[in-house]
Amino acid sequence: MTTLKNDRYIRALLKQPVDATPVWMMRQAGRYLPEYKAVRKEAGDFMAVCTNPELACEVTLQPLRRFKLDAAILFSDILTIPDAMGLGLYFEAGEGPKFKHPIKSLADVKKLPNPDPEIELKYVMDAVRTIRKNLKGSVPLIGFSGSPWTLATYMIEGGSSKAFTKIKKMAFAEPQTLHLLLDKVADSVITYLNAQIAAGAQSVMIFDTWGGVLSPRDYKLFSLQYMEKIVAGLTREYEGNKVPVTLFTKNGGMWLESIAATGCDALGLDWTIDIADAKARVGDKVALQGNMDPSVLYASKERIEQEVQDILAGFGAGEGHVFNLGHGIHLDVPPENAGYFVDAVHKYSKQYHK
Amino acid sequence: MTTLKNDRYIRALLKQPVDATPVWMMRQAGRYLPEYKAVRKEAGDFMAVCTNPELACEVTLQPLRRFKLDAAILFSDILTIPDAMGLGLYFEAGEGPKFKHPIKSLADVKKLPNPDPEIELKYVMDAVRTIRKNLKGSVPLIGFSGSPWTLATYMIEGGSSKAFTKIKKMAFAEPQTLHLLLDKVADSVITYLNAQIAAGAQSVMIFDTWGGVLSPRDYKLFSLQYMEKIVAGLTREYEGNKVPVTLFTKNGGMWLESIAATGCDALGLDWTIDIADAKARVGDKVALQGNMDPSVLYASKERIEQEVQDILAGFGAGEGHVFNLGHGIHLDVPPENAGYFVDAVHKYSKQYHK
Repeated sequence: MTTLKNDRYIRALLKQPVDATPVWMMRQAGRYLPEYKAVRKEAGDFMAVCTNPELACEVTLQPLRRFKLDAAILFSDILTIPDAMGLGLYFEAGEGPKFKHPIKSLADVKKLPNPDPEIELKYVMDAVRTIRKNLKGSVPLIGFSGSPWTLATYMIEGGSSKAFTKIKKMAFAEPQTLHLLLDKVADSVITYLNAQIAAGAQSVMIFDTWGGVLSPRDYKLFSLQYMEKIVAGLTREYEGNKVPVTLFTKNGGMWLESIAATGCDALGLDWTIDIADAKARVGDKVALQGNMDPSVLYASKERIEQEVQDILAGFGAGEGHVFNLGHGIHLDVPPENAGYFVDAVHKYSKQYHK
Repeated sequence: MTTLKNDRYIRALLKQPVDATPVWMMRQAGRYLPEYKAVRKEAGDFMAVCTNPELACEVTLQPLRRFKLDAAILFSDILTIPDAMGLGLYFEAGEGPKFKHPIKSLADVKKLPNPDPEIELKYVMDAVRTIRKNLKGSVPLIGFSGSPWTLATYMIEGGSSKAFTKIKKMAFAEPQTLHLLLDKVADSVITYLNAQIAAGAQSVMIFDTWGGVLSPRDYKLFSLQYMEKIVAGLTREYEGNKVPVTLFTKNGGMWLESIAATGCDALGLDWTIDIADAKARVGDKVALQGNMDPSVLYASKERIEQEVQDILAGFGAGEGHVFNLGHGIHLDVPPENAGYFVDAVHKYSKQYHK
């Protein structure tokens, strides 16, 4: 078994005792850090960092040098799979990700390949191996993927969307085409995440950023069903170590019971739900990750510390809490505020772990 | 008392018996209708239609000529108040609404005037009077406003937003400035809606499109508190008729109990909540409006009818349901599908009202 110097994050996901609540931040490697901006400027663009294992490793480690984070997360993008399927990912300044060849028909879906993680996505696996090696067992490495529904929104809309009219049109007018797409993407996500685990990821997280735009029934049908398939297909133990899996549906607060029933180890929570309510509803089944509004990091040190204490008190005593923001850190947050946040979690959580 | 030929909508909001469930559609006057596009093309732009009472009346009545809708809604924009306050509303093609002079400081907030509805917003009141006269008592006229929080997002961000970082920065770093703004806007909304009621609106609705981006505590503090103030300040009976008020927080499904406790008559529901659950939670206190996913209107006639039947069955027997979409109708929906939807509500709801 691998011995981690700091295994709080893994232990908390497995609801095992810890000395303090572990903490990491979604998008902890990123544009709020000047050292990240320097790498990015040198490299050219976002994908140039993702596709270079040394640079991906460097930016992954940057926040760990500044803050006492309890986990590292692979620096990559959720859209690597559709890109490897041939959709042609590109980024336009200020406009978010786009695809040159979005999915328009059943024929488009049928011809999608299942990318080989060690060929088309070898750059990701090389990044995982490089980061894992350079972490030297200090903290665990988190691998990740987008959920099939979330990936499909970009694949069909051709980029970001507000109303998701193209994918919803397909969901209501041609559901069998969408189900075939979601099933193929789910298979690719399983292969991809299992390859990340084999390459060194010690836990994996599935980001369902857009599951919350569906009705309760359609969420189960088009998003949750495929995440459940992925959970069932994942390597849950590797070289003697449990590999916990976290599912995160943004705006999924009303559906926690269903998500917890998939067999995952933990649920990510955004800030629109009170963590005490979430714990009362599903805390006996799964660990909870979250859930401070990232905008609190705009506040004073005192206010940040107060908010951390409120959320810790909301979760209360007992195991199974990984502290995080409810979504990615904003790019204009002062880095020192992220430091106040991380330190406050460790400082004020000790009383709940005795 | 005014005698309405069709008062189903008002009766349902007041939880009184009806012969069939009333139905209308958010954005029922709009770009999915070719006759709307013709008026719009002639007029020039969106605000040219809003500011011309005859044109606003014409487009308000257009959907009523096609469909057996149980209510008309004033054709206007939620951003008329900030525009009247001097922020300079304009629209850029494909980009949504923007303000020339967004709010940046306490000084900006302090100098905001409280617009006189019969001076700066006279074009809205004239539209209400013209529509009410032309409706000839056929169906009730709904007036509306944005919620203070929702209006403030546009006033501070300067337009639409994804992460709402500017207003959240103010909420966490300078809350007293934001509270002053919200309070001033709430006062203006009260004056504005009461003027709409005096001009002929028989019911009013408050659209809180962006309340759902807040945490439970911040929702109460920055959004709900000010809607509660508005509800308390509204004319609830006019010339012997009750004037029901509906509050709609998009993505507010977790907070229905708090919203129902404001004293409003009805809650708008988006499609992310099961209407049966919503009824079980707050159906004894308020009427419910909703909640079909607007994207269902992309489906076949059979599928649309099935979805209508499912939602009617979810609400079940008893009074207090106004059927609607969970958000505005999409601009690329075939008009005949909207007709199938409206007819299906009347046809299949009769069995629940005996």
